[in-house]
Amino acid sequence: MSLLVVGSVAFDSLKTPYGREDNILGGSATYFSVTASFFAPVNIVAVVGEDFGEQELRVFFGRQIDLQGLERAPGRTFRWRGEYDGDMNQARTLETQLNVFETFSPKIPKAYVDSRYVFLGNIDPPLQLEVRRQLPKARLVACDTMNYWIQRKPEDLKRTLAEVDLLVINEGEARMISGIDNLKRAAAEIRKLGPRIVVVKRGEYGACLFMDDCIFFAPGYPLEQVHDPTGAGDSFAGGFMGHLARTGEHSESNLRRALVYGSVMASFSVEEFGLRRLLRLTPAEIEARLAEFKSMTHFDV
Amino acid sequence: MSLLVVGSVAFDSLKTPYGREDNILGGSATYFSVTASFFAPVNIVAVVGEDFGEQELRVFFGRQIDLQGLERAPGRTFRWRGEYDGDMNQARTLETQLNVFETFSPKIPKAYVDSRYVFLGNIDPPLQLEVRRQLPKARLVACDTMNYWIQRKPEDLKRTLAEVDLLVINEGEARMISGIDNLKRAAAEIRKLGPRIVVVKRGEYGACLFMDDCIFFAPGYPLEQVHDPTGAGDSFAGGFMGHLARTGEHSESNLRRALVYGSVMASFSVEEFGLRRLLRLTPAEIEARLAEFKSMTHFDV
Repeated sequence: MSLLVVGSVAFDSLKTPYGREDNILGGSATYFSVTASFFAPVNIVAVVGEDFGEQELRVFFGRQIDLQGLERAPGRTFRWRGEYDGDMNQARTLETQLNVFETFSPKIPKAYVDSRYVFLGNIDPPLQLEVRRQLPKARLVACDTMNYWIQRKPEDLKRTLAEVDLLVINEGEARMISGIDNLKRAAAEIRKLGPRIVVVKRGEYGACLFMDDCIFFAPGYPLEQVHDPTGAGDSFAGGFMGHLARTGEHSESNLRRALVYGSVMASFSVEEFGLRRLLRLTPAEIEARLAEFKSMTHFDV
Repeated sequence: MSLLVVGSVAFDSLKTPYGREDNILGGSATYFSVTASFFAPVNIVAVVGEDFGEQELRVFFGRQIDLQGLERAPGRTFRWRGEYDGDMNQARTLETQLNVFETFSPKIPKAYVDSRYVFLGNIDPPLQLEVRRQLPKARLVACDTMNYWIQRKPEDLKRTLAEVDLLVINEGEARMISGIDNLKRAAAEIRKLGPRIVVVKRGEYGACLFMDDCIFFAPGYPLEQVHDPTGAGDSFAGGFMGHLARTGEHSESNLRRALVYGSVMASFSVEEFGLRRLLRLTPAEIEARLAEFKSMTHFDV
């Protein structure tokens, strides 16, 4: 079923212990759409500048990604420069140029209005809410957010959370939103704000799902080297939502599988700089890693 | 089959965000023997002082714990005072009185010489090695250690590691011994030092097992409140080794189950101060929590 993502398309300049790359394609909508397109058709709503050319567009070609909603505005594309050191769990932002993203007002093309699955990437909470309200047929709406919005727009964020089904955030953000250190109680508190389902990303420690009375854990895939963590969270969301859109089914057992597909896609994403590993990924590799997750977590009683 | 533990018996004085208790029974051999005795008969080799009385001994009564190897020496029992704050992942030691533990030289009673399963608790590495060499019929010897020995007696520790089958340590210690940040590569490096099997404890993030080509993860049990983390690692080891001694089988699938039993016992241990929760634990509660671990980690492909 149709899956819509609203988020950023960006040029990233990154430095990690494994090297540096300047002005490579990134952004939440980019990582999400590339990963989700392995599972289901993706409609993208985002903005780029005049510096976004044929070469960048080519990333989306040959994949089931619809670009009708990719707006081109006067000016330059959003740019981010950051670096990772030591444990690679936290990026240090060195420079942010919002550029065309500063005045971004998401427009939903008519063809997207019937979207059933929606991922509201990490953008200003009132914009997330505006998009959500334009999609009356959505069956499952997920959103992401970050410390910046949690601290500066807590009331706006609460209004958005009240109208989404699922929140995907990292562990520190879950603690910040709820004001509770303990993960289980933090998730329960967040669920009172609206989202029926809470997914918490824990970096190298994996991810967990809170829904009804169910708690489900997936470990982080034990890579020998993490080259570039940029986009891991959006690749996770792409695998997670992509699997749900492909299957059109929200049972607890299918959400468990979705969490593992999210973990699989995040693990591939960080193996190389930027989108590189994802762009040559195959469905067979995805299924093989899913089987590895099973073998790493299952035991007989 | 018979399981032997050598380690400390201590009086702990603890402060956590949930309260404080002074001079309560603790020590690695104590937590280990109480938890392991739910699974198999345990032989304990440790030392106590003249201040260790009837009341303390009573903890071991009515359980399958043999006290022949519990030596009573002139002087006072080992005492430790510590506190935990914030994330409860790391104890702050406020005072250590070694007392009779300072000159502890483990003596293996004749009846223990045939022990098949052995846990060398966190004591001076040359003592661990001395014990190990007195147990020629041991089928599986596991050992624990800590940053103190890793930093001060690296060569002695290596000699001990060369003669054990299994090392149980926490994540920070795995990085310290190997000098490698990445967990998978750290475990591979440690296995080169001797232990065929490496078990890494990750606090609230669970534990993982490295053996042959297998990596297996168990999550931490999502408690709403951790009242006292003291003894969690030894309770983990007690569940792990207890299950192996009970079944007498070292297949990969049985080691997976052992890792989950270890996680189960650690999760009960931290629910209340000291040994309190463990002393009123029932086998049915253990099996019920094992089933919860299964439901928190299993998914259908």
